[in-house]
Amino acid sequence: MRVLAKDIAGKGADTSIEACGWVHRIRDMGGVCFIILRDRSGIVQLVLNEKPDITLESVIKVQGFPAPNEKAPGGTEIRVSAIEVLSRAEPDLPFQVNGDIAKLGIETILDNRLLSVRSPKIRAVFNVQATIVEAFSAWLRSQGFTEIKTSKLVWGGTEGGTELFEVEYFDRKLCLAQSPQFYKEAMVASGMERVFEVAPAYRAEKHDTPRHLNEYISLDVEMGFIESEMDLIELERGLLAHIFSQVAEKNAADLALWNASVPNGEAVAAAPVIGYEDAVKLASELSAKAGGARIFDINPEAERFLCEWAKEQHSSDLVFVNEFPRRYRPFYTYPSDANRTMSFDALFRGLEITTGGRRQHNYDAFVEVLPRFGLKLENMQNYAALLRCGCPPHGGFAIGLERLTARILGLANVKEASLFPRDRKRVEP
Amino acid sequence: MRVLAKDIAGKGADTSIEACGWVHRIRDMGGVCFIILRDRSGIVQLVLNEKPDITLESVIKVQGFPAPNEKAPGGTEIRVSAIEVLSRAEPDLPFQVNGDIAKLGIETILDNRLLSVRSPKIRAVFNVQATIVEAFSAWLRSQGFTEIKTSKLVWGGTEGGTELFEVEYFDRKLCLAQSPQFYKEAMVASGMERVFEVAPAYRAEKHDTPRHLNEYISLDVEMGFIESEMDLIELERGLLAHIFSQVAEKNAADLALWNASVPNGEAVAAAPVIGYEDAVKLASELSAKAGGARIFDINPEAERFLCEWAKEQHSSDLVFVNEFPRRYRPFYTYPSDANRTMSFDALFRGLEITTGGRRQHNYDAFVEVLPRFGLKLENMQNYAALLRCGCPPHGGFAIGLERLTARILGLANVKEASLFPRDRKRVEP
Repeated sequence: MRVLAKDIAGKGADTSIEACGWVHRIRDMGGVCFIILRDRSGIVQLVLNEKPDITLESVIKVQGFPAPNEKAPGGTEIRVSAIEVLSRAEPDLPFQVNGDIAKLGIETILDNRLLSVRSPKIRAVFNVQATIVEAFSAWLRSQGFTEIKTSKLVWGGTEGGTELFEVEYFDRKLCLAQSPQFYKEAMVASGMERVFEVAPAYRAEKHDTPRHLNEYISLDVEMGFIESEMDLIELERGLLAHIFSQVAEKNAADLALWNASVPNGEAVAAAPVIGYEDAVKLASELSAKAGGARIFDINPEAERFLCEWAKEQHSSDLVFVNEFPRRYRPFYTYPSDANRTMSFDALFRGLEITTGGRRQHNYDAFVEVLPRFGLKLENMQNYAALLRCGCPPHGGFAIGLERLTARILGLANVKEASLFPRDRKRVEP
Repeated sequence: MRVLAKDIAGKGADTSIEACGWVHRIRDMGGVCFIILRDRSGIVQLVLNEKPDITLESVIKVQGFPAPNEKAPGGTEIRVSAIEVLSRAEPDLPFQVNGDIAKLGIETILDNRLLSVRSPKIRAVFNVQATIVEAFSAWLRSQGFTEIKTSKLVWGGTEGGTELFEVEYFDRKLCLAQSPQFYKEAMVASGMERVFEVAPAYRAEKHDTPRHLNEYISLDVEMGFIESEMDLIELERGLLAHIFSQVAEKNAADLALWNASVPNGEAVAAAPVIGYEDAVKLASELSAKAGGARIFDINPEAERFLCEWAKEQHSSDLVFVNEFPRRYRPFYTYPSDANRTMSFDALFRGLEITTGGRRQHNYDAFVEVLPRFGLKLENMQNYAALLRCGCPPHGGFAIGLERLTARILGLANVKEASLFPRDRKRVEP
């Protein structure tokens, strides 16, 4: 019966146990050889009488007896009586997994995902990410939300624009969905009222920056019977507070590897909400003070200034910017007055992690606004149908999973938070 | 403060309450008008002094006082003091939501997803589906599995074959992933050992049958350190037993609408395992008895005969067929002898819902087998890397979410279990 590394210390010294895993380190002392074995739960020290014919990162199975040794990780080592090599690793791997990962460039890390994820520190990124998905889903279910799965093969972009990947679909062309926008609104109006989806989204954007991915996981939320974007901001506060508390609870060791922490519930509750115009003015003032250029909209620089301000003035890593101008938001955004909309962004530790807002649910207002966005009613029949068969006031938002993961851990590039990122140049592995 | 339909009965008669939802039915008695209001939780009867100017399926908000009425759904109705129309539905909707859904053809149901999901019976399909995803994920987490998200934009098909959708990806062509096969194996070998993924998968198959979708949700599982496919069959028994028990617990009302039930844990434990050759022989005999043709492989007809046999002989809705011939399985399947593999299918109520098996983890055996599948090592460098840096014995399987949903509820066509199905002809909504 196999015992995981983390459970070895609990076994009595007279119990024969089996352990399996990867050879993390070999130390041959002559007459005695120590092997650090790594499995999914952690590491354990093996003691052998002689160095076996083995390479680093090979997969082995050993039989033996646990023995206390305060110098061994976890305080218990395994005295090995039999060893079997299940899979021999090549001796010339691209880099040494037990070495200092900080010295590897991002290209090496991403080119060799299989090896780099073996590093406990990089593995930690995806442990945290798994918790985010779990906590996101669990909290929304507890609030009466239904999980949906919608098609990623669509006719055109909901957001307009040309940043779409085309798919050869039998004898016609479809596009990869930029977001489940229409579908999540449709399912709210179908009577589900509250829905969420965890799924890939695609943006054929050509820029290659530390904040962009051409394929990412979108954590989408949509709910009916709201008054304004403030209902959504309250919802996201509750959601993020739950995600952070779950990460703190389940990923303490992972956070420690990155010297990272998550905001507590009080800090999330204290996150300020600032109107777009005030936010631009504030960011511009802060930029001027820092000797920087004037700021005209919420660009990446403004995001950083606003987050610094929120941290200093409100002790918050999070800030919401609302009342975005109509010209910056898609046609379906609900206006609050002639120039502004009931929409918002959430900025977290210097980066936009969420865009959301109330949507237009009134058919006449929808028809009226289309020309201003260069859209034609005859091309928008699905949306028209949505608004013509009884559609409650509603709204929602989306969180970028990789961005949230990256900002929790302080990763320099959002690609580090994607197992197999896609950008203009990278399409493998 | 809004009160949901299901909670109205718990409110005192002197409490003014608010209810929101869709107008499900209107009965004008002259002097008194009854409206059945439908929200995400159920239905409630409203009583008004006169018929308001309103259409079926409009979205309304009412204020009023609860009053006991044993003839009303739930035993309590709302005496309405104020009504507001939030969204007026067109009077000429494609069909009546409160009518008999059984009379609608599948094309009407799928063309009008927004309306058809308003029918409680059709909504039930997606309630069950949401529980399946939740239970699948929760049980695997409890067994030490990590949830992963992998790219759907890949170089070529893991399974070989030409059934791939091409994507215009900047200046090159990629394909939509048929499965996360390589990625899930890679993450097992990366030290995660146990992984699962819930994500779309794409098959450019041209046939249009009640069992196929060109885009479906694949529930993928992969684990390291297994001996044979029997470990995977045991895993799937535990997983399915948990999913079924969760559906029974959370979706009793949904199951009742379809007159459906799920197998209990004993029945899942009793599901027989039958070798491929015996299974073909048995299906052929059963076919002969029924006056049918001889059966040469596990085709859809054989799947039905084998499930009938399992039901009669083992009181089981589920049967596992293992030891598939090498020629029927992909190159990465682990052979048990010269002709057979450590692979299996799970058949449930007449339909294959799972394919799985142990994978080849030995590099030399992998290199040797490639030519037999018409594959070239130089095109398989990612797989080669996977097997050359320490790869444990491993295997896994995938469950088709829509197929499992359809067989639980007895849906005639798997497309009914997809919110927005894609087939050769259908690409909207």
